[in-house]
Amino acid sequence: MKPKISVVGGTGALGGGLALRLARAGFQLSIGSRDADRAAAAAEAVAQQTGSADVTGTDNVASAQGADIVFVAVPFASQHATLTSIAPVVVGKIVVDTTVPLVPPGVARVQLPQEGSAAALAAILLGESVRVVSGFHNISASKLAAQGETGCDVLIFGDNIEARDEIIAIAGQLGVRALHGGPLANSAAAEAMTSVLIAINKRYKVAEGAGIMISGIPSS
Amino acid sequence: MKPKISVVGGTGALGGGLALRLARAGFQLSIGSRDADRAAAAAEAVAQQTGSADVTGTDNVASAQGADIVFVAVPFASQHATLTSIAPVVVGKIVVDTTVPLVPPGVARVQLPQEGSAAALAAILLGESVRVVSGFHNISASKLAAQGETGCDVLIFGDNIEARDEIIAIAGQLGVRALHGGPLANSAAAEAMTSVLIAINKRYKVAEGAGIMISGIPSS
Repeated sequence: MKPKISVVGGTGALGGGLALRLARAGFQLSIGSRDADRAAAAAEAVAQQTGSADVTGTDNVASAQGADIVFVAVPFASQHATLTSIAPVVVGKIVVDTTVPLVPPGVARVQLPQEGSAAALAAILLGESVRVVSGFHNISASKLAAQGETGCDVLIFGDNIEARDEIIAIAGQLGVRALHGGPLANSAAAEAMTSVLIAINKRYKVAEGAGIMISGIPSS
Repeated sequence: MKPKISVVGGTGALGGGLALRLARAGFQLSIGSRDADRAAAAAEAVAQQTGSADVTGTDNVASAQGADIVFVAVPFASQHATLTSIAPVVVGKIVVDTTVPLVPPGVARVQLPQEGSAAALAAILLGESVRVVSGFHNISASKLAAQGETGCDVLIFGDNIEARDEIIAIAGQLGVRALHGGPLANSAAAEAMTSVLIAINKRYKVAEGAGIMISGIPSS
């Protein structure tokens, strides 16, 4: 049976795109938001748009508590408060942090946190009992929300290889090619690349959002 | 007339690949090495392999001194000494630093320096009178040494946009698609990505070296 998945911050742009793909792929889905009513409304919209009967919405903590796997899709400024709030209810679970350390207004400039990456911060905030995986940094919300091919890859990082494998398999079910990027420390590369892609979007007028594709992988 | 180009560290793997592409493209080329004799021998080999009559070799400082544009392709452990040695002779020039901050034995793990990137270190070491550009982090030496399409993009960073433009144009003449990646601080993304690509090479058994391609750029 497919795991029950929570998207904490599922009313945001990236979280909303993830929620749509998860619902379409038939996962039992719980959308989390700071505001339970907004989450419920978003869940209804996702259910209507996808025809899924398995979408509910509630506050972030309840959403994370009821799920097997928890995706976190919140702005960098909310990462600390959000992870602190869900930490007690995600013990033993896989948490997939998608946070990119963008610091407005200079979002096209790399500004990695002193800890090295937002993923490293997540690991510190959640503690050792949580298997922290990071990923989905280099895919635009609009590409996630759309159906079909994404035209880009995502990189998945984590110190627990089985947890990475599990998230890569889920990404595959969502129609997103995901690749092992190495340990959690390597998340810095993809997080920083997001600012580069924002700079590229501006410079080259990329409406749909530039992405990265890893070349050279033998087809399996 | 094409600028005269020095490749400091041109007897190394990446520098050697760059030298071959520069010679094939008809640039006046000076190969630099700590050992002038090794540089001269490498220059002779490049001249034979490419049929170029415009390749010479000498020590790094003399090579940088005689050139209009200086590429630096040395290991991270040699970056400090090399840049310090050429600093007095590159005033007013463009220096293209290709250094990736790999710290053996953990080269598949991102280990960015405290200054943020090797490029930031280069800017500190060379001073404000030098236009520092960084790039060519995510292309393997073997792809550079080979002829024809590279199957990957390179990202070019720098705080001086005209200098970036100039290096992107040169890359184009070498048959390498290069894209503006933003200010020098953004070099952290490509430098960190090299460790991710090394991790991918291991994990997915990529013999020729994985690369990145930026998707979504409108064809010009």
